[in-house]
Amino acid sequence: MLTKNTIKQVASLRQQKFRKELGLFVVEGRKMTEELLHSDFETVGLYATEAFLAENPSFSDAETVSEMQMEQMSGQDTPPGILAVVRIPQQAEIKTTSRLVLALDGIANPGNMGTLIRTAEWFGIHDVVCSLDCVELWNPKTVQATMGSLFRMKVWKTDLTNYLQQAKNKGQAIFGALLEGEDLFRMSTKPEGILVIGSESHGIRPEVLPCITHPVTIPRAGGSATESLNAAVAGAILMAEMTK
Amino acid sequence: MLTKNTIKQVASLRQQKFRKELGLFVVEGRKMTEELLHSDFETVGLYATEAFLAENPSFSDAETVSEMQMEQMSGQDTPPGILAVVRIPQQAEIKTTSRLVLALDGIANPGNMGTLIRTAEWFGIHDVVCSLDCVELWNPKTVQATMGSLFRMKVWKTDLTNYLQQAKNKGQAIFGALLEGEDLFRMSTKPEGILVIGSESHGIRPEVLPCITHPVTIPRAGGSATESLNAAVAGAILMAEMTK
Repeated sequence: MLTKNTIKQVASLRQQKFRKELGLFVVEGRKMTEELLHSDFETVGLYATEAFLAENPSFSDAETVSEMQMEQMSGQDTPPGILAVVRIPQQAEIKTTSRLVLALDGIANPGNMGTLIRTAEWFGIHDVVCSLDCVELWNPKTVQATMGSLFRMKVWKTDLTNYLQQAKNKGQAIFGALLEGEDLFRMSTKPEGILVIGSESHGIRPEVLPCITHPVTIPRAGGSATESLNAAVAGAILMAEMTK
Repeated sequence: MLTKNTIKQVASLRQQKFRKELGLFVVEGRKMTEELLHSDFETVGLYATEAFLAENPSFSDAETVSEMQMEQMSGQDTPPGILAVVRIPQQAEIKTTSRLVLALDGIANPGNMGTLIRTAEWFGIHDVVCSLDCVELWNPKTVQATMGSLFRMKVWKTDLTNYLQQAKNKGQAIFGALLEGEDLFRMSTKPEGILVIGSESHGIRPEVLPCITHPVTIPRAGGSATESLNAAVAGAILMAEMTK
């Protein structure tokens, strides 16, 4: 039976502090939970309302909770009726296999972070290397924005400058999304190596810039007064073009 | 002098009901306000904190308000220190000039809505036609996500099916982002006409589908388990490729 303590603990996972302390995060919604249960992630708790179970009998393994209890546990305004508590996996050693690896430098918005991961998977990029200051992967908004890709992708956090420097020393091409670089649609270099996307407000950091061997630009229409593209949008356009 | 009534009124503009009733919306932040003041939009109130004005003397036209007053007016967790109240312009007759027009069918997320408008401007698309049920353009999150593009773009709301049917009757090409269509990167048709992007959860609506003359697909990597792309991301990739 669901105790008050469990409800309190699940609700506490909305905060990064408790996710870190307990090593757990929350997944909500039918689709996301389905993806979770098909993955290697360890589900330590699965809760559903009666109404949800009546419509989704395949989730019969879930513990039945009242609407009130679900509202207390859920971080969403309209709880979808199914919620899982999941163990945060230990980070393995970085070992990439994709021809093009996505590197994220200081992405701060959880929606952008999740969208970049989801988009990478669409284009067959399975490895994402993030700087240490990127927004937390287990943030509910990041988890939600990945739409399940999170459970299938390899995402690491590391000292990005150090990682890129080593890759550069090994002769890898390091592409960077910059406002001044080679025209994305006329690139002469084979798009293999690492693609770096900078943060929403500052782009790629000054200390990362010397690692970039190939600056790439998404050409802007003549006369356009926009100064930049959203980070997830820029990343998506680059990934689409470089993996096609 | 700033009255309690004004503060209350500005704060009320966080709600769509009051934006509609008063015909006003709110813009916050240095960059956004700068873009606003360079536009044809009518600013009916401009408020800044002393701290903001000390760092940004060019905004000396703004009425000085206390930090406390700004916190009461602002819809942001960390008020940027400058806030403008702006008149919602009357919608003019639809009159597009872009070679490719962006049409949005039921976009519900204000972040996606704003990002699509910002991205369109980057690629030289100045006309956006939205279905009546698209999220409100004057929602603070939409306004923010446009990063100022809002003030330069033409955005209309209309009965989208009717609009597309008329365009189709005139012989225009209506491109639609669909999961089964012509490969975006091998398109044989000249990318001129209207590009339709569907909603986040349901894609292009069944009643809009018969208007689509050219279904277009962003090819997915073999073996990828993702079911879809984010609507703003899909729109961006299509706009990038079709305007290059």
